[in-house]
Amino acid sequence: MNSFLYSNISAGLIALSDFEAMKVAFVIFEHMTALDFVGVYDALTRLKTMRFMDDFEWDVCAPTAEVTDFSGLRVAATRVGGSLAEYDWLVVPGGFGSRRLAKDADFIAWLQTAADCRLKASVCTGSILLGAAGFLKGKRATTHPTSFDELRPYCEQVVDERIVDEGDVITARGVTSAIDLGLYLCEKVAGSEVRERIATQMDYPYYPFTAH
Amino acid sequence: MNSFLYSNISAGLIALSDFEAMKVAFVIFEHMTALDFVGVYDALTRLKTMRFMDDFEWDVCAPTAEVTDFSGLRVAATRVGGSLAEYDWLVVPGGFGSRRLAKDADFIAWLQTAADCRLKASVCTGSILLGAAGFLKGKRATTHPTSFDELRPYCEQVVDERIVDEGDVITARGVTSAIDLGLYLCEKVAGSEVRERIATQMDYPYYPFTAH
Repeated sequence: MNSFLYSNISAGLIALSDFEAMKVAFVIFEHMTALDFVGVYDALTRLKTMRFMDDFEWDVCAPTAEVTDFSGLRVAATRVGGSLAEYDWLVVPGGFGSRRLAKDADFIAWLQTAADCRLKASVCTGSILLGAAGFLKGKRATTHPTSFDELRPYCEQVVDERIVDEGDVITARGVTSAIDLGLYLCEKVAGSEVRERIATQMDYPYYPFTAH
Repeated sequence: MNSFLYSNISAGLIALSDFEAMKVAFVIFEHMTALDFVGVYDALTRLKTMRFMDDFEWDVCAPTAEVTDFSGLRVAATRVGGSLAEYDWLVVPGGFGSRRLAKDADFIAWLQTAADCRLKASVCTGSILLGAAGFLKGKRATTHPTSFDELRPYCEQVVDERIVDEGDVITARGVTSAIDLGLYLCEKVAGSEVRERIATQMDYPYYPFTAH
């Protein structure tokens, strides 16, 4: 960890860090649950907007230029199709659309281009998409409690925990666990003090984990 | 309350209700915080998508066809400009963009077309926009803790509570209070059992209020 950054944080200053450069692919798709995506997106993008990491970049990646969430909200991609291999992290939301996409060979082949990403993370039924891409083989994983049975064939064990961290694959439970996952990932990349600063800015008093 | 609906809820069935028809305007704007909006939107739209209210409608309203949030996320409006007078409820998010817009006479005049809406609600610095529109006169209100001073000129008293309910105006504190506000509004329109069902579907164990 960067002691210069940390001493500045303690002093209440904002400092640019020299953490390793990182590029995240936020996947979105038709009939996703927007909050699954935005909960992680809000927390993680603050690594950049609150100036903790200068070299934190992201794309909003989709098979189409725009997607419509389950309730009709239209959200635009910044990157349409193409290989996901260039990203360090992959973040996949859930939603009703995930059921159809788990059987969509083109979509799953596209997700599989992320096979070598250092971390694949999901919220809610996004884990079923990670599973359909083969990323959960031999792993413990979670999803929305109503979809535990659906997830079972894709992983070693379904776990009823808010976040299940298997190192290179991290799955979060239902919709609002997106925020907990986002903060968990902030801590993973930048430490617990940065995570606390971001949670304070998000006015989120509920983060259920303690630093380890 | 509708006992037919409630007995079906207790039995674990989904029932259409005969609650009063309702139409909500979700305002979005350039450099908003997407989570301020999506947190309320996710909870409230479940009144319809989980089939608790048949006559629950909404628009995503903006001065332009599309807005870009503070981190670069592009979200489309379903309704561009026009009077907001036809809506029952107005929901306004916050974000850095609210500072400029509080001084934008055209934007504030547009918000003021919602003067007769039964309820105006805000998340984070959205309350500064409600204030600039004159909706907080004589009212208690809240906002993001870093913006208490900025809110003060617009209202009777700034209150450091997660949700401040003044009857026809309800303001919520920082970003993630959007989810608490969304659930609070669900309870307000459809009761605590519906709110609990929606919170469970959102996998949100943190709702800080008890039914009253």
